[in-house]
Amino acid sequence: MAILDGLNLPTDIKKLNINALKELAEELRAEILSTTSKNGGHLASNLGIIETTIALYYTFDFPSDKLIFDVGHQCYAHKILSGRKDSFSSIRTDGGISGFPDREESEYDSFVAGHAGTSIAAGLGYCAARDSLKEDYTVINVVGDGSIANGLNLEAISVKDVKPKKYIVILNDNGMSISKNTNGLYQMLSKGTTKRSYAKSKRIIKKIFGTSIVTRGLAKIRNLIKHVLGKNQYFENYGFKYVGIVDGNDMGELVKILSRVKLASEDKAILLHVKTTKGKGYEKAEEQAELYHGVGVDLKNESGEFSKALGEKLNDMIDSDSRIVAITAGMKDGTGLSAVEQKHPKNFYDVGIAEEYAVTSAAGMAAGGLKPIVCIYSTFLQRGYDQIIHDVCLQNLPVVFCLDRAGLVGKDGKTHQGVFDLSYLTHIPNLTVFAPTTANELKDILDYAISLNKPVAIRYPKNHEGEREVLGIKDGRWETIKKGDKVSILAVGPKMLKVALGVSETIDGVGVISARTVKPLCEKTLRQIKDTLVVTLEENSVIGGFGGLVSAYYRKENINVKLLSFGVKDEFIGHGSIKCQLESNGLTVDDISSAIISADDTLKRKG
Amino acid sequence: MAILDGLNLPTDIKKLNINALKELAEELRAEILSTTSKNGGHLASNLGIIETTIALYYTFDFPSDKLIFDVGHQCYAHKILSGRKDSFSSIRTDGGISGFPDREESEYDSFVAGHAGTSIAAGLGYCAARDSLKEDYTVINVVGDGSIANGLNLEAISVKDVKPKKYIVILNDNGMSISKNTNGLYQMLSKGTTKRSYAKSKRIIKKIFGTSIVTRGLAKIRNLIKHVLGKNQYFENYGFKYVGIVDGNDMGELVKILSRVKLASEDKAILLHVKTTKGKGYEKAEEQAELYHGVGVDLKNESGEFSKALGEKLNDMIDSDSRIVAITAGMKDGTGLSAVEQKHPKNFYDVGIAEEYAVTSAAGMAAGGLKPIVCIYSTFLQRGYDQIIHDVCLQNLPVVFCLDRAGLVGKDGKTHQGVFDLSYLTHIPNLTVFAPTTANELKDILDYAISLNKPVAIRYPKNHEGEREVLGIKDGRWETIKKGDKVSILAVGPKMLKVALGVSETIDGVGVISARTVKPLCEKTLRQIKDTLVVTLEENSVIGGFGGLVSAYYRKENINVKLLSFGVKDEFIGHGSIKCQLESNGLTVDDISSAIISADDTLKRKG
Repeated sequence: MAILDGLNLPTDIKKLNINALKELAEELRAEILSTTSKNGGHLASNLGIIETTIALYYTFDFPSDKLIFDVGHQCYAHKILSGRKDSFSSIRTDGGISGFPDREESEYDSFVAGHAGTSIAAGLGYCAARDSLKEDYTVINVVGDGSIANGLNLEAISVKDVKPKKYIVILNDNGMSISKNTNGLYQMLSKGTTKRSYAKSKRIIKKIFGTSIVTRGLAKIRNLIKHVLGKNQYFENYGFKYVGIVDGNDMGELVKILSRVKLASEDKAILLHVKTTKGKGYEKAEEQAELYHGVGVDLKNESGEFSKALGEKLNDMIDSDSRIVAITAGMKDGTGLSAVEQKHPKNFYDVGIAEEYAVTSAAGMAAGGLKPIVCIYSTFLQRGYDQIIHDVCLQNLPVVFCLDRAGLVGKDGKTHQGVFDLSYLTHIPNLTVFAPTTANELKDILDYAISLNKPVAIRYPKNHEGEREVLGIKDGRWETIKKGDKVSILAVGPKMLKVALGVSETIDGVGVISARTVKPLCEKTLRQIKDTLVVTLEENSVIGGFGGLVSAYYRKENINVKLLSFGVKDEFIGHGSIKCQLESNGLTVDDISSAIISADDTLKRKG
Repeated sequence: MAILDGLNLPTDIKKLNINALKELAEELRAEILSTTSKNGGHLASNLGIIETTIALYYTFDFPSDKLIFDVGHQCYAHKILSGRKDSFSSIRTDGGISGFPDREESEYDSFVAGHAGTSIAAGLGYCAARDSLKEDYTVINVVGDGSIANGLNLEAISVKDVKPKKYIVILNDNGMSISKNTNGLYQMLSKGTTKRSYAKSKRIIKKIFGTSIVTRGLAKIRNLIKHVLGKNQYFENYGFKYVGIVDGNDMGELVKILSRVKLASEDKAILLHVKTTKGKGYEKAEEQAELYHGVGVDLKNESGEFSKALGEKLNDMIDSDSRIVAITAGMKDGTGLSAVEQKHPKNFYDVGIAEEYAVTSAAGMAAGGLKPIVCIYSTFLQRGYDQIIHDVCLQNLPVVFCLDRAGLVGKDGKTHQGVFDLSYLTHIPNLTVFAPTTANELKDILDYAISLNKPVAIRYPKNHEGEREVLGIKDGRWETIKKGDKVSILAVGPKMLKVALGVSETIDGVGVISARTVKPLCEKTLRQIKDTLVVTLEENSVIGGFGGLVSAYYRKENINVKLLSFGVKDEFIGHGSIKCQLESNGLTVDDISSAIISADDTLKRKG
């Protein structure tokens, strides 16, 4: 790490020559590969963007210039170069740095992102602020070709046909979204540009820009860019000067082009179209880029136990009812739908990173007679909240939502926690909400959900806590796992059920119930346990979730019950191990046991 | 109404000649004008689309073909023509028909909409269902030029570059969104098409299509359309055959073009670009189309008492701090921001119907040093839910949201009720939520909100219930309006406060508190009233709102309180008078009084 070790300040990069910059890229590649293989994280996207990131640091002045990453998962090289090389080995771990940009972590992180589509809106917001406050800096967005087609980015692009000066969007085009790019915009990008390949562009650029052009005037440079590079009507119509296609893994070319783009941006906003190879430099990742998008500790496929069960079950269900279709938004591996794509390609839709479209088109499909299952992570389905209300539930259409990664998610941290879904779903009329605790229970609930013929949401984390015999869901009733005459713990989901069982081992007289139907509540059970201390336990915000529903039921029925509610604190929960996240939220056997004992002094710990 | 009276079935339209169709258009115009001037509703957009609607009924076979309106507010002619001419006079009234499409009302209403941007996704969903189920019908979207640029529509357009056959999008282009069209897409539409005006197109079309072409082959027709009409690269790239520009108020031309479009759509999806005059036929509405978008009973401007106060106050605030900027999403009149546009145009942003962009660009502005105030109706801000979490609150950025039309909205009905905001906002960490009861209190809270320098949401209905002296908000404390030793009613917002005061007139010992800070709660007051019967009253879903927060507080503090919570029922609330909506939700003085008395038999009605 000869070059990297010598960098003390981000501006030190500006002193390096091209060869040193190239060497730096290799060092960063090695660093990211090695750390990611230990800590997990997004590997392929980070390897692809290294040269672009270095060239940006070489050309611009951060943090006074603002660098905003879309989705944010490709910020590793940026983090290392902006003073976090020593802490980089701690990325995604308890107490370590975040895997996503974080304004609290560094002034170089201009805007937090973990969801797609926010960068251009944020960038234009920054430009408006800068111009209004008469400040002078350049705003740069780095956007992947998958997320540029997200509705929020498309709104931002189209909102005005004049774009601010000193504003640059770098379209990092690796020819794929999170999974395969299913989006028409990318097709249009290729169609809309001149047919010149970037290899040819590069030769022409070298020919013309080969000699020093420092003395050339701005107008001339703009002119050169215009003539040697491609055009794209789409972006030109929306007020960008389109520059591309540039080889985003060619250090020398990038440095040259970026200096010219910087000058040209003083006159007009620039869209720089850069082609990169996702996973560049890591053969295995390069071959199987999709698998390595969110690489785990063992570089394994990110599909979890529930996702696997979902894929299997959906294939079985489609076997017997071809009206069932599975929809995802750029997450076919993570949700387990790859299996459906393989076995039933006609019943499988990956709409790209377009959660809103996924929900509303599912509503249209249901209105037209299909039975859509929309499979999106809990945190990303937040993007479809209005569509769930207005397009699905208001029309009472039979769409089933499968929310994977519900609850605490561990290393991805605060932009990815699935801890709001019970709060954003349970107040929607007509919607039934389930929380299975085992993979087989998920399968059972899926059958039941389809039989209901109305809107249903099923939320579950990545993994369960072991299989067990589960009572059939039938009429949605809760499952009493252990009876208790003094305390009744109503647990939502597998992790909370495990904690509840732990508490029941600790204190005598504690009953455990799996509250797998969150809405409607199992009122029969609630009435049965009303003379015990009732405890709700959920991996969701303490506000607006299951505990609130139980409390509201007893109030409505005028039943005076002693009720304790536990959930995730009303704050954004950072990255780290799920174990630590449970501890810091007081969701452990010990914490809950202590709280129960202090609420009822007739209770004591066993032994 | 000679023609209209003779129409018994929607298919009867097919028997009319061009002159009769023109006469029908005038009759519909008179009918819509007369009813709207009594019942309120969207006038201008409905007047503009009459000829297109008639031509659609003349050409297609509804309900087997599917007609889907974007936003849905332009469906009046459609309602009259699809068997609802007798009930049309009841539109928007208690027990009458809805002002928006409603699947429960008629099989001719293929998809419910009141929010913008959903139609193309829904249309593509219908096509997918049709093709999968091997059915055979045509799916038609009618989309305005304002809502076509909404992110959800843009996602839908861009999601695949191959569009289904027998799918037609009619772009109803009246050159304006809800307020002025601020969107670049419209610019691109004009730029992207050939420069030929529709007047010229019309002449050419007449020349070529003038004679009967029934015997001409399909290929030839497609060819003709291609040659006589404009092109638009944007839509062509996304798999549409672009046909336009057509005069959407010329009955004869529309009928001819639509029959050709119908044939051509058997080969490829069509985007038919139609120019209409919003408010066509009503001079006053034509002159002031923006004012008459949502015409009230007296055709008056739709700005409410709170909106007026907001506009005035923001102007004062900007006078003393130019970093304050006001942002709306196509609703400058309704939110009161027209006043800001007039006085401080540089501090005013109307982003068009792009709520997501409004929120995230505000986050960018705040990160860049501005103080954005985002003013969007409660129901439409649902579209920015993820952005409020992920872009504003997670970064703790000082963005103030002003949610107008919160609570029950009356005649607009179930797609527009603002009864979820307390549920979708209060579980978001870092967010402070206010509910003022008078216009002056709103002004006071705005000052306080800016001073907090963090995310704030302020929700209020269109009108208050009279001004009164209000205690300054200072540290966010609640206002005790009337002390009571037996019952304490915590009321959120002006309507609930009025009910609470009514109850206090009915029963002795009832105290009334304006819970104007919904989050965080005023814990001091909650402790003071703990020995009384505590009653929460909110114009929001009973689930996940204020009542739940109060209950959670007492549980957390281990205080055993008798608590009754009242709010809007867990169902979608239809259109009608606000008075009826309050009654059907049990939110009247009488209902609440009865419930309180039956919860505590020591209480009695006065006199």
